[in-house]
Amino acid sequence: MDKQSIIKPEKIAAEQTVLWSPRIIGEIGDTYIKVARVQGEFVWHSHENEDELFYILDGQLRIELETGDVELSAGDLFIVPRGVRHRPVAGEECRLMLIERKTTRHTGNEKTPLTRSIEEQLAG
Amino acid sequence: MDKQSIIKPEKIAAEQTVLWSPRIIGEIGDTYIKVARVQGEFVWHSHENEDELFYILDGQLRIELETGDVELSAGDLFIVPRGVRHRPVAGEECRLMLIERKTTRHTGNEKTPLTRSIEEQLAG
Repeated sequence: MDKQSIIKPEKIAAEQTVLWSPRIIGEIGDTYIKVARVQGEFVWHSHENEDELFYILDGQLRIELETGDVELSAGDLFIVPRGVRHRPVAGEECRLMLIERKTTRHTGNEKTPLTRSIEEQLAG
Repeated sequence: MDKQSIIKPEKIAAEQTVLWSPRIIGEIGDTYIKVARVQGEFVWHSHENEDELFYILDGQLRIELETGDVELSAGDLFIVPRGVRHRPVAGEECRLMLIERKTTRHTGNEKTPLTRSIEEQLAG
């Protein structure tokens, strides 16, 4: 990662060929900045010890929570608190930025065909 | 900070009455998410131990570095590596998001009339 370059998160997200597959674009302290291109339904999961920040770059994302749904549009930011089960759903294509501790696994403790390791997320 | 609310960074940045005065809007692990409304010239400074991430919400920002300037537009992300002296400059109003370790002081080791404590940044 060349830290002296201008990074264009929306463009990198748009280039992702695999849906729901986070790509790491930067890091600050113990935190990764990631982008993803998503459409359809993700899996229900939670992160026991990590809050997870969603920032919508383009499109719309619904985050289903057991306490009700949250509808996010471009420019909206939402933090899913640690331990809270959630499922992101996008009716149409959505590009988003994720900010989360480096230890966060994107499908939580669920092992699914969508699950990607951190090494895969670094490779893009 | 109510973590279950939708946060609108661009709107919060636009509401800041004081220029160059970061407002904390969220946290992830050891990292703060902040917004600021800026115009004009900031001070030359560096952060000895912390990288600092700029994400442009609206407008344009030039980050002057001793190795050359970087011109950022809405949607661009740039990380100033630790120890690198820099000065943000905005010819016109710019709204931006900052992602940085909680220990980061926004004017580095420089004490200036613009310097705000973390407590002030939390209060908004």
